[in-house]
Amino acid sequence: MRAKILPMPIFALLNDEQASPAARTVFDDIMRTRQTTSVNNFWRALANHPPTLRRIWENVKQVMGPSRLDALTKEMIYVAVSATNNCEYCLHSHIASARKLGVDDEQLAEVLAVAGLANETNRLANGYRVPVDEAFR
Amino acid sequence: MRAKILPMPIFALLNDEQASPAARTVFDDIMRTRQTTSVNNFWRALANHPPTLRRIWENVKQVMGPSRLDALTKEMIYVAVSATNNCEYCLHSHIASARKLGVDDEQLAEVLAVAGLANETNRLANGYRVPVDEAFR
Amino acid sequence: MRAKILPMPIFALLNDEQASPAARTVFDDIMRTRQTTSVNNFWRALANHPPTLRRIWENVKQVMGPSRLDALTKEMIYVAVSATNNCEYCLHSHIASARKLGVDDEQLAEVLAVAGLANETNRLANGYRVPVDEAFR
Amino acid sequence: MRAKILPMPIFALLNDEQASPAARTVFDDIMRTRQTTSVNNFWRALANHPPTLRRIWENVKQVMGPSRLDALTKEMIYVAVSATNNCEYCLHSHIASARKLGVDDEQLAEVLAVAGLANETNRLANGYRVPVDEAFR
Amino acid sequence: MRAKILPMPIFALLNDEQASPAARTVFDDIMRTRQTTSVNNFWRALANHPPTLRRIWENVKQVMGPSRLDALTKEMIYVAVSATNNCEYCLHSHIASARKLGVDDEQLAEVLAVAGLANETNRLANGYRVPVDEAFR
Amino acid sequence: MRAKILPMPIFALLNDEQASPAARTVFDDIMRTRQTTSVNNFWRALANHPPTLRRIWENVKQVMGPSRLDALTKEMIYVAVSATNNCEYCLHSHIASARKLGVDDEQLAEVLAVAGLANETNRLANGYRVPVDEAFR
Repeated sequence: MRAKILPMPIFALLNDEQASPAARTVFDDIMRTRQTTSVNNFWRALANHPPTLRRIWENVKQVMGPSRLDALTKEMIYVAVSATNNCEYCLHSHIASARKLGVDDEQLAEVLAVAGLANETNRLANGYRVPVDEAFR
Repeated sequence: MRAKILPMPIFALLNDEQASPAARTVFDDIMRTRQTTSVNNFWRALANHPPTLRRIWENVKQVMGPSRLDALTKEMIYVAVSATNNCEYCLHSHIASARKLGVDDEQLAEVLAVAGLANETNRLANGYRVPVDEAFR
Repeated sequence: MRAKILPMPIFALLNDEQASPAARTVFDDIMRTRQTTSVNNFWRALANHPPTLRRIWENVKQVMGPSRLDALTKEMIYVAVSATNNCEYCLHSHIASARKLGVDDEQLAEVLAVAGLANETNRLANGYRVPVDEAFR
Repeated sequence: MRAKILPMPIFALLNDEQASPAARTVFDDIMRTRQTTSVNNFWRALANHPPTLRRIWENVKQVMGPSRLDALTKEMIYVAVSATNNCEYCLHSHIASARKLGVDDEQLAEVLAVAGLANETNRLANGYRVPVDEAFR
Repeated sequence: MRAKILPMPIFALLNDEQASPAARTVFDDIMRTRQTTSVNNFWRALANHPPTLRRIWENVKQVMGPSRLDALTKEMIYVAVSATNNCEYCLHSHIASARKLGVDDEQLAEVLAVAGLANETNRLANGYRVPVDEAFR
Repeated sequence: MRAKILPMPIFALLNDEQASPAARTVFDDIMRTRQTTSVNNFWRALANHPPTLRRIWENVKQVMGPSRLDALTKEMIYVAVSATNNCEYCLHSHIASARKLGVDDEQLAEVLAVAGLANETNRLANGYRVPVDEAFR
């Protein structure tokens, strides 16, 4: 049994003192919008490049904010895509969000089941080169 | 302007006469379950290998059938994964299913927007190697 | 019904007159090695950049040539990966090679079934974040 | 040097006491079919959702069981797809299975070499948009 | 030889009359920023959902606009990622942009060669599970 | 807080004594070409299969060596593809190379921003099935 050296991220996670004023402005908006007093690692990593931090936060605010699709449906889609792409961070963060919105373990398992099956039939349809039905047009 | 030669699928699409009795039994179950009189190209392609046809149909019936998640949510997840994997056939077939279940163009555009953004932030979280927050555990 | 304009490849397919002497030398080696008188489109496209043409041909010759794994097994692996990545060209070319080596439709369907299922369980194992068993180490 | 906190899986690995009767029935079938007395983590994770546990096990039993392709070929295809999709768990579990079936390190390295090269030529064929040869149809 | 039915996009491409005022405002900004009188199909498709149209255009303007990396380098990175993901549309559009910025065929072939090789070594490093060197930290 | 067991790679990292003469010849060429006295883990893992070690090294030497594209541009493309495919090892090794060639944190963040955005628009273009503009042909 060997202790593992913690993998260093590409960029440091910036705390409030290390973050630039531009980054802290985004931190403040994140906390205000989400009504929380903490800022997740994702944003503290992006704070190394404030234009990306602000851009991605504006995107998330628009796409994941109130709209025609309810918030939980959007979190479940996010989980399914993150499982498809194998993003460990995104899986944990969006599962946490989905749970706050009320998803239970059985529903979560169903999200992963749909994602898993779609990954299989995607390859079968592509591998067999199935032509699109006229009826779908 | 040049006419395109239709890309030949790997396997022929089997009509009812060409399909084996084992495949036709699955076709019958598909039509009965979906209350329709037609069988899509995907199943007619898989009919070249009846064990796969039956296996995949049983999977789809279980995963996409009545359960804790509603049918439309599952179709939207399917669309998002299929866009991520670039499966043309699956996009068209599951968008057709979602539309039958009442999704409108605005909601569909939102599904693709969430899928698109997740694909971006998946790469940012992976590229920055962001460590998972303790709070998510 | 509308005629489709044939998608133009990024680079022209070079015929024997258009190919440089360096590219024709590779063409000759391809035909000699494969004991054929034709050169596939893939090589005629790569001929636009002779260093890539020669490099990729040398790689294919080494990896797909006589070795510990038999030629058909290697073609089947190639088909499975190409279905996973949705490479239409590679699917058709390696299925053609596998068929020349004796694979029949049932075996080919099994290759795609294994590839399909692997794509599903890959996402389930990644999505559930299943820790590797000690027994596998 | 910092000790790493073990990443928590999304779901707990269920031991025999925690698993539901439905899940234990699948565990029993796994042990009987594989003639072993242990159940791998993958199945203990899926046991959190018995319908998925049973469904995936039935799929694996059908696809990976006796058929036209020999068992080792199917394990090698599984390894190649798992390397393509970067599934750490699946790599370890299917390499373990392939080794039990007699694959040696040299053959295993060849499987990964074919998978690696296919991933390169898949992108070259897709990137150059190479049209499929008439000869492959 | 069979004529192909043109695959219908999921959404219609909106011309200037069909686009909403919100979408036309973005079209105008695209033409002004790029100093051109035409709007590409990508934007005409996104115009079906004006919030996505505006959001993606603002992203592209920020990321691909003047910054520390020169415009051609960014287009080449875009081409490499699009080849990796097999996005036909993005390959053509970003190769067109790179050519306007002066890239020649030899350089373009090199971009695809680097992308291809990276796709191979990515799978070898992941497949072999190579631990990160201390020297890289 | 639990100590983590270091994930065992598939193959051992071979030191100079364990490597075969064929592998050591490649190690020597790597150190001579790169004017260094150390050999990275990637090569020590591939040394388990000397034909792959030599083949991949020859590929890297050709593709990443002096050519029409400058070395830094090629490293940045490698980073973008590695982020897209989630290759932790390749991200760290090619970011290390890019930094040696002078890239700073702001430029590196821009590389990841372009890669991230490309991953989003790739899915939007594929998901909307946007037809390629005539103007790009």
